[in-house]
Amino acid sequence: MPVSSPYPLVTIAYALETILAHCPPLGSERVPLTAALNRVLAEDILAPMPMPPFPAAAKDGYAVIAADPTRRRRLIGEQTAGRVAALRVEPGTVVRITTGAAIPPGADAVLMVEHTTERDGWVEIETTVAPGADIRPVGQDIAAGERVLSRGTVLGPAEIGLLAAVGQATVPVYRRPRVAILSTGDELREPGEPLGPGQIYDANRFSLAAAVTLAGGVPSLFGIAADTPEALEAFLENALANHEVLLTSGGVSMGQLDLLKPMLERRGTVHFGRVIMKPGKPVTFATLEGRPVFALPGFPVSALVAFELFVRPALRHMQGDHAWQRPRVPVTLAHDLRHDPERVEYQRARVVLEGGRFIATTTGPQGSGRLLSLVGANALLELQPGSDRLPAGATVTALLLQPPTTT
Amino acid sequence: MPVSSPYPLVTIAYALETILAHCPPLGSERVPLTAALNRVLAEDILAPMPMPPFPAAAKDGYAVIAADPTRRRRLIGEQTAGRVAALRVEPGTVVRITTGAAIPPGADAVLMVEHTTERDGWVEIETTVAPGADIRPVGQDIAAGERVLSRGTVLGPAEIGLLAAVGQATVPVYRRPRVAILSTGDELREPGEPLGPGQIYDANRFSLAAAVTLAGGVPSLFGIAADTPEALEAFLENALANHEVLLTSGGVSMGQLDLLKPMLERRGTVHFGRVIMKPGKPVTFATLEGRPVFALPGFPVSALVAFELFVRPALRHMQGDHAWQRPRVPVTLAHDLRHDPERVEYQRARVVLEGGRFIATTTGPQGSGRLLSLVGANALLELQPGSDRLPAGATVTALLLQPPTTT
Repeated sequence: MPVSSPYPLVTIAYALETILAHCPPLGSERVPLTAALNRVLAEDILAPMPMPPFPAAAKDGYAVIAADPTRRRRLIGEQTAGRVAALRVEPGTVVRITTGAAIPPGADAVLMVEHTTERDGWVEIETTVAPGADIRPVGQDIAAGERVLSRGTVLGPAEIGLLAAVGQATVPVYRRPRVAILSTGDELREPGEPLGPGQIYDANRFSLAAAVTLAGGVPSLFGIAADTPEALEAFLENALANHEVLLTSGGVSMGQLDLLKPMLERRGTVHFGRVIMKPGKPVTFATLEGRPVFALPGFPVSALVAFELFVRPALRHMQGDHAWQRPRVPVTLAHDLRHDPERVEYQRARVVLEGGRFIATTTGPQGSGRLLSLVGANALLELQPGSDRLPAGATVTALLLQPPTTT
Repeated sequence: MPVSSPYPLVTIAYALETILAHCPPLGSERVPLTAALNRVLAEDILAPMPMPPFPAAAKDGYAVIAADPTRRRRLIGEQTAGRVAALRVEPGTVVRITTGAAIPPGADAVLMVEHTTERDGWVEIETTVAPGADIRPVGQDIAAGERVLSRGTVLGPAEIGLLAAVGQATVPVYRRPRVAILSTGDELREPGEPLGPGQIYDANRFSLAAAVTLAGGVPSLFGIAADTPEALEAFLENALANHEVLLTSGGVSMGQLDLLKPMLERRGTVHFGRVIMKPGKPVTFATLEGRPVFALPGFPVSALVAFELFVRPALRHMQGDHAWQRPRVPVTLAHDLRHDPERVEYQRARVVLEGGRFIATTTGPQGSGRLLSLVGANALLELQPGSDRLPAGATVTALLLQPPTTT
């Protein structure tokens, strides 16, 4: 039985750098606009035509010649959006027009309907209007050839609307990493089944699958592997076939049944096996046939914290997202805090915006098995070693997992 | 041709109150854990058993009697996680144990493997240990019957892990509103098709479908309706069958072809037809056979702003989310700003956290057709009427659409 780990402790920065070097952006694919939400754009998008593509009415009213002094003008027809009539506005005439319709030749302004009276084919003009008034000129919003979106942009509702507006029915986006997720441990049972003596329910596959989805990956649940070499070998074999990333939890600490690290050593390369952090110290990163393998600790909180720090950045980086890191902000502690004096510790907290400052409050006892410490947490406090306690009012750095709320 | 709208201008607060009164929470359904991400919990969840359910080893090592003075003790067997052996620790004996394994009867502490030497069935104890050391007692994380999650909680990775940990294979969640989305206007074409004279591409169905998805709804795209009563009637008829919410854009301003409002009046109840705001003034809310109908303006920015202010809160409220509003935070303007002196105006901005303050920078010209003004925006500035300009350094309220970034 080994009494100390053969793996040197590495820093978080070293671990992250190593991971990113082995997780380059995946290739791209074209998807329909309706499947583009939250995907990352793989190419710059240039507008093939100006927007609007023709001079368009910004209001309902009449297309007129601005300099025309005639007070009572003849209505020669109507132009509605999408229906182009063969009409030309001459002095003394107007064309009725609706918002979005093309301005007919001759006209150089739109007079809002509110400032007119129409009767029997004639329109009384009650005001003057400047040339160009309420006309959206060609290219006002977007010039032809303008770069409207850059590679690396995450596509939200506005970006998707913009792609539609410039006529793109499909979009080039980075592929999403497919992530095989396995839990290991003889003690684990499926939720819904009865528990035997010494057994607990597996939480990690479900929490990690959700975290993978939020990070843009496509999770596959691979069940629970018993603590046997055969079960782990079978997982690695099956998962390598159709997945870009392998993700396990459990089986990486120092007990006799921790079979995973030696197996990863044999079949691939273990880049690191321990990180100077709390929780999550035994987190292991390997490559197998060129594919990244993350072996996370089994305690549910340790697994999710290690995911946040190492797996999520990898998945975002593989999708071409420049912003692969969570935002880090300074926060003020609402109360005293004890922390690990020797390792960077990530404590779960709730951060609210109060009087222009971010105030952080702990989510309670920070045991690595206590998932309740992550419930309601929108931040991880990043507590540097060197001291073992911090007073209320101290400023520390927090990784924002979700937007802070207001009080 | 009407020269003024028959609909009184209502305030945003009145509009929102009216909407929520007609959009009560939907019923609930049970979904598997793997489909629970981002759903809203419909019931409180009580833990059916304590966590851990048995006293468990927190480390790899030996289960011992803390008060046992014997330095050299006999190893009587091994207990690994999930495998319960018939062992009892007596003075002078130890049981080898792995993290997560049940503590065998008799033992009251775990001695970390690092502080021992094992040879030929005997273990040398090099240190003393306190009773309870490295044992996770029954119920340490969760007491039996404890409420672990409350109705109204949005389920993220930690909450889903927690549900799994307490054995829930399925989860009671609020149903997601199914939203039928229609664009109206003769000028609209599908992206990918060629444009004729006076035509533009429809952006709104795609941006609104993405916004509905982000708000937790299930969008159905209903195509583009021509400006005819028949096309609109057909939409209403089809959409009412299988959707809880109807969402249209276009066809609500004052032109002759704005057929939608009169049709909604005829078939249902129009609760309001204009709101004192910019953009989005012609936004219309009706109910038809008890179902909410939102008729948004056609300009792409107006449609998305009106969605943010009225439709998203409705969809969150229907899903039982207590936090149906976006967070509002005070932000400092990076530059002078002109705004509407008579209506609350929502300008799109990028908010960054700088020196402990939120600094807001405009996304450029704020025309209601210019979707680029929403690209990269993570906030809507809520500019109150009464002045028409604000100086750099002024503090205004912003609705946060996404977390603010750091510089």
